[in-house]
Amino acid sequence: MKSPVRVTITGAAGHIGYALAFRVASGEMFGPDQPVILRLLEIPQALSSLNGVGMELEDCALPLLHDIVLTDDPAIGFREADYAILIGAKPRAKGMERSDLITENAKIFAAQGRAINDHASPDVRVLVVGNPANTNALIAAANAPDLDKRQFTAMTRLDHNRALGQLANKTNRLVADITRMTIWGNHSMTQYPDLGNCLVEGVPALELVTRDWAIDHFIPRIQRRGAEIIEARGLSSAASAADAVVDHVRDWALGTPEGDWVSMSVISDGSYGVAEGIVFSFPVTCAGGEYRIVQGLELDALSHSRLKKSEQELLGERAVVEDLLGR
Amino acid sequence: MKSPVRVTITGAAGHIGYALAFRVASGEMFGPDQPVILRLLEIPQALSSLNGVGMELEDCALPLLHDIVLTDDPAIGFREADYAILIGAKPRAKGMERSDLITENAKIFAAQGRAINDHASPDVRVLVVGNPANTNALIAAANAPDLDKRQFTAMTRLDHNRALGQLANKTNRLVADITRMTIWGNHSMTQYPDLGNCLVEGVPALELVTRDWAIDHFIPRIQRRGAEIIEARGLSSAASAADAVVDHVRDWALGTPEGDWVSMSVISDGSYGVAEGIVFSFPVTCAGGEYRIVQGLELDALSHSRLKKSEQELLGERAVVEDLLGR
Repeated sequence: MKSPVRVTITGAAGHIGYALAFRVASGEMFGPDQPVILRLLEIPQALSSLNGVGMELEDCALPLLHDIVLTDDPAIGFREADYAILIGAKPRAKGMERSDLITENAKIFAAQGRAINDHASPDVRVLVVGNPANTNALIAAANAPDLDKRQFTAMTRLDHNRALGQLANKTNRLVADITRMTIWGNHSMTQYPDLGNCLVEGVPALELVTRDWAIDHFIPRIQRRGAEIIEARGLSSAASAADAVVDHVRDWALGTPEGDWVSMSVISDGSYGVAEGIVFSFPVTCAGGEYRIVQGLELDALSHSRLKKSEQELLGERAVVEDLLGR
Repeated sequence: MKSPVRVTITGAAGHIGYALAFRVASGEMFGPDQPVILRLLEIPQALSSLNGVGMELEDCALPLLHDIVLTDDPAIGFREADYAILIGAKPRAKGMERSDLITENAKIFAAQGRAINDHASPDVRVLVVGNPANTNALIAAANAPDLDKRQFTAMTRLDHNRALGQLANKTNRLVADITRMTIWGNHSMTQYPDLGNCLVEGVPALELVTRDWAIDHFIPRIQRRGAEIIEARGLSSAASAADAVVDHVRDWALGTPEGDWVSMSVISDGSYGVAEGIVFSFPVTCAGGEYRIVQGLELDALSHSRLKKSEQELLGERAVVEDLLGR
């Protein structure tokens, strides 16, 4: 039998963490022959609730779940982690400015970056879900000097999957028929869901839908989908976010399908003229546990301006946390 | 590609339904090559929340999920259902007697039995999760005269899995090393988690743990585990209950492993002297979509008295709802 993979989840007693832990433990992330050890990290106030999550995991009698560690100590939580999924973050409180939100979370993710640097496996792969996810990932990476910045990513897979769902609905096709969807930019309102390279059963999506639908309906709906869910459920997206985590990490670890790509927020290497060093969502292919930004896509003037807008936002976020970017 | 399986889930916007729907849709119940159609049923007050669940399912872009139907009309919800998972039930309100709880739910499950009879596939398989689950299953079956009572079951798989987890902990083994666990009786405090036939790596469990541990710690802990979870989480078991639903239905549909069995509450045929016609948890094997009660197990005097106690409770519950047992 394979030796177990160690997966750390922060904020594991929250809604997304609760929806995620059981799916990882049941084998959905790494496949039916890969045992896992869950290391669940929470803030001290959530330890009783986390204890309940641990009991429920035990109650599932999952054959692949070889051990569960529950802790509020990052040094223990990240110990030897092969994957670190950073969900826990400070939510925006009433009256809080966006810059305050960024600063508050920057402190959390700087500390987690240091703990990952010092305690995780040297090959650890990190996915940041807690918002502002892209800048949080940047800060964590900047505070882990012994690791490669390519080991740190942020999640735009939920946006990517939402875009697949909306296009499938509109074209009356199955999501499995759609390839080459792309989310560019920041996981925020400035993200750019791009149909320009997308195929539906091999046919360009923009031959099946109008440009007006794409601009006036599709793009804003993906950008605002989170708010739409909150309005209907009275709670923010949890199970769908957890599902996107499973997809992001599984594809990173096990590879993307031939002829298709996925959207991941990764450290920009300057591709498509995006400023180097910010965490930006690109189309990527994965193989052998490594991602590669898809090169050579044609972008029209509208697309370029959308990318630029999201880049400017991310540069602005980086400026707010400048003093936390060194160790 | 296989034609989709239709799965109806009632109470789909509740905690267990929310934890379950995404796992069914991702292929965990019927395997990675079996498309599914989800038919999600809720009470009118929960339709907005259910709509949110539907949007989140769409947002997962799950390739196996071919359609989603959201409704508060049982005639639509159960239409052509191959599997009906009845989770929604009236919870016990403050000051409510247990007999009131039974009666209130009896009305709900009588109506659902009729709707299943009239609208579901003639081969539908029903799992009742909403409490009192065993008697609710009995009532649903009694109100579906065109169907075989063997098509109706209630869930004791969560108790079964909890028992596996506790024994694995105690013996310091993996749950995969344990076979032939049994839960007998009612899904209630009178249930009897029985180690008498259980094996750990092929060794009788009762050679590895003391009889005192089994009687004083193991049995009461399984019986009271639900309360223990509520105390820790502040919420009742949801993800672990959903996991048990996946296990129950998957094993019923796809079969139990050679040399092992699972616990399912099914219509008693008089096996082990249990009164015929009540829904009672037995050890069962499954093959070809049918279950078979394991025969010929040795039960000592203590076990017989425990079975009798749970049987008496179920006969008492049946007496309370006598007038709802005919169509």
